[in-house]
Amino acid sequence: MAIRIVVTGGTFDKEYNELDGRLLFKDTHLPEMLALGRSKVDVSIKTLMMIDSLDMTDGDRKRIVDHCLRAPENRIVITHGTDTMEVTARSLGSSITGKTIVLTGAMVPYKFGSSDGLFNLGSALAFVQALPPGVYIAMNGRYFPWNNVKKNRKTGRFEELR
Amino acid sequence: MAIRIVVTGGTFDKEYNELDGRLLFKDTHLPEMLALGRSKVDVSIKTLMMIDSLDMTDGDRKRIVDHCLRAPENRIVITHGTDTMEVTARSLGSSITGKTIVLTGAMVPYKFGSSDGLFNLGSALAFVQALPPGVYIAMNGRYFPWNNVKKNRKTGRFEELR
Amino acid sequence: MAIRIVVTGGTFDKEYNELDGRLLFKDTHLPEMLALGRSKVDVSIKTLMMIDSLDMTDGDRKRIVDHCLRAPENRIVITHGTDTMEVTARSLGSSITGKTIVLTGAMVPYKFGSSDGLFNLGSALAFVQALPPGVYIAMNGRYFPWNNVKKNRKTGRFEELR
Amino acid sequence: MAIRIVVTGGTFDKEYNELDGRLLFKDTHLPEMLALGRSKVDVSIKTLMMIDSLDMTDGDRKRIVDHCLRAPENRIVITHGTDTMEVTARSLGSSITGKTIVLTGAMVPYKFGSSDGLFNLGSALAFVQALPPGVYIAMNGRYFPWNNVKKNRKTGRFEELR
Repeated sequence: MAIRIVVTGGTFDKEYNELDGRLLFKDTHLPEMLALGRSKVDVSIKTLMMIDSLDMTDGDRKRIVDHCLRAPENRIVITHGTDTMEVTARSLGSSITGKTIVLTGAMVPYKFGSSDGLFNLGSALAFVQALPPGVYIAMNGRYFPWNNVKKNRKTGRFEELR
Repeated sequence: MAIRIVVTGGTFDKEYNELDGRLLFKDTHLPEMLALGRSKVDVSIKTLMMIDSLDMTDGDRKRIVDHCLRAPENRIVITHGTDTMEVTARSLGSSITGKTIVLTGAMVPYKFGSSDGLFNLGSALAFVQALPPGVYIAMNGRYFPWNNVKKNRKTGRFEELR
Repeated sequence: MAIRIVVTGGTFDKEYNELDGRLLFKDTHLPEMLALGRSKVDVSIKTLMMIDSLDMTDGDRKRIVDHCLRAPENRIVITHGTDTMEVTARSLGSSITGKTIVLTGAMVPYKFGSSDGLFNLGSALAFVQALPPGVYIAMNGRYFPWNNVKKNRKTGRFEELR
Repeated sequence: MAIRIVVTGGTFDKEYNELDGRLLFKDTHLPEMLALGRSKVDVSIKTLMMIDSLDMTDGDRKRIVDHCLRAPENRIVITHGTDTMEVTARSLGSSITGKTIVLTGAMVPYKFGSSDGLFNLGSALAFVQALPPGVYIAMNGRYFPWNNVKKNRKTGRFEELR
């Protein structure tokens, strides 16, 4: 079962720059994380962009939708910042049918020790294999259809709209 | 969606005893791991035993099967040593229908830094929510039906029988 | 041999706020770090301030100098941001004699996994026990007298002035 | 100030073999640990043996003493299992004068996350630079002369004989 992983950046992949004390993006940590998980899932990783999701534009979202439409795989995991994950999920959900697409991210960078990233990646990879076609967000061990999910800004957790 | 997590021990929960340099079991790390994963899944955790799966007897397996049969939940994750995980999966698969049961474990103890445990837990929790009734092993990011899985002793990876 | 540890903040003690993605200070990690190092050194920890050393004022430095002068201990470790550590070292070195004072810090927050903090703390605690009275910076496994040290902004490493 | 680091094995360098669940030795982690500590100390690392200190023979100890005698450096750190560290310290202390030799080790393998190894290495490297000639054990943040130290088997901590 071939799965595409589309990297867009987000907290997931942020790193600490020890020279100026700021957070930045370098390369994705996906291959390292899959190795740590001893993953034997057949994946191809594509880094589409490396940005904070607060900086994501309509144009960026269009690129993500187009990429998923054109991808040969019918099962796609997208790593994404949590702040606007629900917006990108809506773009995808209203444009694509017949594919299982799962967005996930992290509250804390993978490299920072206390990250939920590895748990979320394991969870997203499993959901993308087992859920029927549709667009979903996988966070907090749960999955949410694209049209019934929002991030609770106070708790940092994802929940149903209704 | 209520999920039961049944703890049986295995590498997952082993710790290092710094006084004698041996590996041992104390309490399960499941609650700590779920907190790290920021899990909001509705789970109840039951520690049934705390043993190396090489030491698991037929009586132990009967206890696990009975516990799953009697559990009020229809979705159950079992943490288990990898060495005989396939044996317990067969006991469960040949005795239980109508429930989704997912066994998982780890190649390296969760506390040892380079563990696949958090990835596997995220994956097992997702599979148990999304797969139809049946007994499965979730390892290496993949899932395997109970009657078509074995651990490859040379690589340490799980694979299909045929 | 009683040793005072004076906490002033710095990268050492920064944490990641998962709700807004910023770095912040909460409590010091010194007790946790000493426990991890299985330290049996007789220390008393005093948190004097919790700030980025770029925000440290002359008034703050005066407080640090006064605190060290009045402390009953003759051996003092100060945790401090690396950006202006050399400035505080000069304030101390030009004001205090007869005490061994060692400043240390970290390039990466202790909580971020890839930190030099634990190494530096072990090193600073050792230097403060073994060096003669004077004011020193302990970084990169080395020690530098207060009047012959600067941080190289390009490499992030400490080196002699001449 | 050139320092020799002599590796003899011990818990410090043990790893977990995920295929059989046993602890084993592969390569030393010293270079990785020094990099993590951003060490700029001028060191040369020599792996003399890679053994559990409970397996160390009189012949092994003779090799360590001879190596230290012949080493061009006058400052030497030895990584060593904690169980017989005091025995090797006595061999060195009764044979060598005019050099500063510091033995250190770890209660938990460096790779296991909760290790005191990095703290101890920082401490040992500092003591070897700052202490006068003699043979010492550096553990628990403290230093002990070779003829006044023992490991307390119940607590796992090092303490004075009298």
